[in-house]
Amino acid sequence: MIAELICVGTELLMGQVVNTNARFIAEKLAPLGITMYYQVVVGDNVGRLTQVVKTALARADILIFCGGLGPTDDDLTKETVAAAMDLPLVLRTDEWDKIVSYFTEKGREVSPNNKKQALFPPDALVLDNPFGTAPGCILEQDGKAAILLPGPPREMIPMFGAHVEPWLLARSDTRLYTREVRVFGMGEADVAQKLSSLIENQSNPTIAPYVKPGEVTLRLTAGCDSEDEGRALVEPVLAQIREILGDLVYSDTGRSLPETCHDLFLQAGKTLAVAESCTGGLLASAFVDIPGSSAYFIEGAVTYANEAKVKRLGVSRDTLDKYGAVSAECAREMAQGMRRTSGADIALATTGIAGPDGGTVDKPVGLVYVALATEENVTVQEWRLYGERARVRGLTVLYALDLLRRFFFS
Amino acid sequence: MIAELICVGTELLMGQVVNTNARFIAEKLAPLGITMYYQVVVGDNVGRLTQVVKTALARADILIFCGGLGPTDDDLTKETVAAAMDLPLVLRTDEWDKIVSYFTEKGREVSPNNKKQALFPPDALVLDNPFGTAPGCILEQDGKAAILLPGPPREMIPMFGAHVEPWLLARSDTRLYTREVRVFGMGEADVAQKLSSLIENQSNPTIAPYVKPGEVTLRLTAGCDSEDEGRALVEPVLAQIREILGDLVYSDTGRSLPETCHDLFLQAGKTLAVAESCTGGLLASAFVDIPGSSAYFIEGAVTYANEAKVKRLGVSRDTLDKYGAVSAECAREMAQGMRRTSGADIALATTGIAGPDGGTVDKPVGLVYVALATEENVTVQEWRLYGERARVRGLTVLYALDLLRRFFFS
Repeated sequence: MIAELICVGTELLMGQVVNTNARFIAEKLAPLGITMYYQVVVGDNVGRLTQVVKTALARADILIFCGGLGPTDDDLTKETVAAAMDLPLVLRTDEWDKIVSYFTEKGREVSPNNKKQALFPPDALVLDNPFGTAPGCILEQDGKAAILLPGPPREMIPMFGAHVEPWLLARSDTRLYTREVRVFGMGEADVAQKLSSLIENQSNPTIAPYVKPGEVTLRLTAGCDSEDEGRALVEPVLAQIREILGDLVYSDTGRSLPETCHDLFLQAGKTLAVAESCTGGLLASAFVDIPGSSAYFIEGAVTYANEAKVKRLGVSRDTLDKYGAVSAECAREMAQGMRRTSGADIALATTGIAGPDGGTVDKPVGLVYVALATEENVTVQEWRLYGERARVRGLTVLYALDLLRRFFFS
Repeated sequence: MIAELICVGTELLMGQVVNTNARFIAEKLAPLGITMYYQVVVGDNVGRLTQVVKTALARADILIFCGGLGPTDDDLTKETVAAAMDLPLVLRTDEWDKIVSYFTEKGREVSPNNKKQALFPPDALVLDNPFGTAPGCILEQDGKAAILLPGPPREMIPMFGAHVEPWLLARSDTRLYTREVRVFGMGEADVAQKLSSLIENQSNPTIAPYVKPGEVTLRLTAGCDSEDEGRALVEPVLAQIREILGDLVYSDTGRSLPETCHDLFLQAGKTLAVAESCTGGLLASAFVDIPGSSAYFIEGAVTYANEAKVKRLGVSRDTLDKYGAVSAECAREMAQGMRRTSGADIALATTGIAGPDGGTVDKPVGLVYVALATEENVTVQEWRLYGERARVRGLTVLYALDLLRRFFFS
């Protein structure tokens, strides 16, 4: 099966947004054995979109569209695709009722513009959108299918998972068993080199490394007839990877670093508090983001000003004067102070220079400290990170979490 | 001038990388008055790439290619584009020398494969690549131009800035003047309806709405000969939008809600502290994310557990017992307590039920309170949000920021 992806939106042509949908969908199709030869981005223009649809109908079996399903006059994907496929649009009263109740629940008035969102070809498979007003749909005609999805990723991604993936899977004769191994503390090139003989000899499962800032994920994918067969194919390779990478591996079930720490806290029955300077709330948020974290996460302090470090955490003025706020000593006192004042079993602390300003020769931008305090002990680590402010802050969170999961593993 | 962007690489079709080049280049072209109607992604395949090049030559003046300039057999963009434009390739010895010395400097050996990177049409304008071995080039034939750039952003971006942007600027006679109006507190459909007569009658400037969670941005774009002329065209439309939308508009210069609050604090010379429950550090992080926020942002407290609310902020146990942690009363005491204990001029507080669990009939998931305390006054707002945990948390931050900017505007 050959698919073509068509993203509709002037905002993509103007460079206002990055086309993350293209990556998401491409990544989902590959393991289903669906080939993509072309991706096209086109603006909200009937003539050009019609041309693109006709070209794609001639060279692909499945056309996947993102964007242009909204209520405004600009949004014309459904109208244009239906016309190009010779399908009429009629009002689906059941879908219109859903849109009305969506607005009613939110205490807002339905705009007459929204009515076009309930128009579909009579045989269309309408795809619910729990996160917005624009339903998606699947249209079929002459052996070709068009899958129309909303543009915003928070609407598109759940719709793809709930409706499109099962629909495609039912039409594909390939099954895939996938496991994600997550690695922190080594770059992609080094990970790939250490695993080179495994990667070169891969056939089933395949091993694909993916990289995110500070992290490498290895995706193992086995073609199989059942989940049990898939697991049996993947497990021995997982064991080899763990043998080679050792404790750089923190998860082989795709759990993220915050999720891994969350699981460890729940298991251990310990409590946590965090004190942040340069990460400024990101570390606390990494935990609060996970449902159920209130079982162990007591509190966080974003002690950005020195005065707050003294007053809230009891960092000594001497330490700040002598070593500065970005120092191992300050990180240590922040962690200890947070543990003491919160009553938590474990406290984490971060301090550093996120940039772009504030760096000196001795303390350059990217110098960060993370600390972990328990009743018995305090561990402080110094890291020298590079990149812009958001990257330094994000990486500092990951280093703090890595320190934490290593404490539990040890 | 019409440009078409063609990104070449199987890794894009497989979803292994996000196409950030497309966004970068699109964003650079718009202000030069260069229109892009299509972006295409195609794999490393001569037949399909040739088709894409011929289609693009028929509908665009300038073709911009990213990727496929490397030394391997897979890399065939230059060969394919030159053939489609009927241009022969010859060895440029000066370029070959540069490639040899690039390798020599790095202490590596030149591979014979690299020789193909020094092949160009005789009249090609070769573009230096200080960050890799693949030079770019600009080919011209029959009034059409093809700009070939390497795929890795760290090579492409500097080459674009140094060579392509000046080349395009010298050939473009249009300028675009763009302003972004940012709106909070009304959905896209309603905004579009309120502005429908303006949007329908748009010509120069054009008005394009686009949407992010909780926010609508209107982009006004005027074609003009100078920035002054552009501003003169856009300002009256901006005034009409402000007239219609009133204080829903918080910025007409594209500043985000956190940036708008940041600017207001710097202007006012006031200081800020925040106390968070359900947002769990995201609100603090919205400020800490902006360089220079240390001028006014003193501290944040993520008082997730009730005990922390009492101990850190002085929320009364009576209030917690009687009204619960998710209540207007608790939000009020959190804001007041944060202001008092931090010494900040203004304190913001958030509390709510982010879900997915913890909701009741009286206090459903999505019920949130935001509060703002000053020396004179406390304001508390109740909102009922919907969506998954991350969305509720993100929107709560926006509502807190909106409360803040309205305080400054009033």
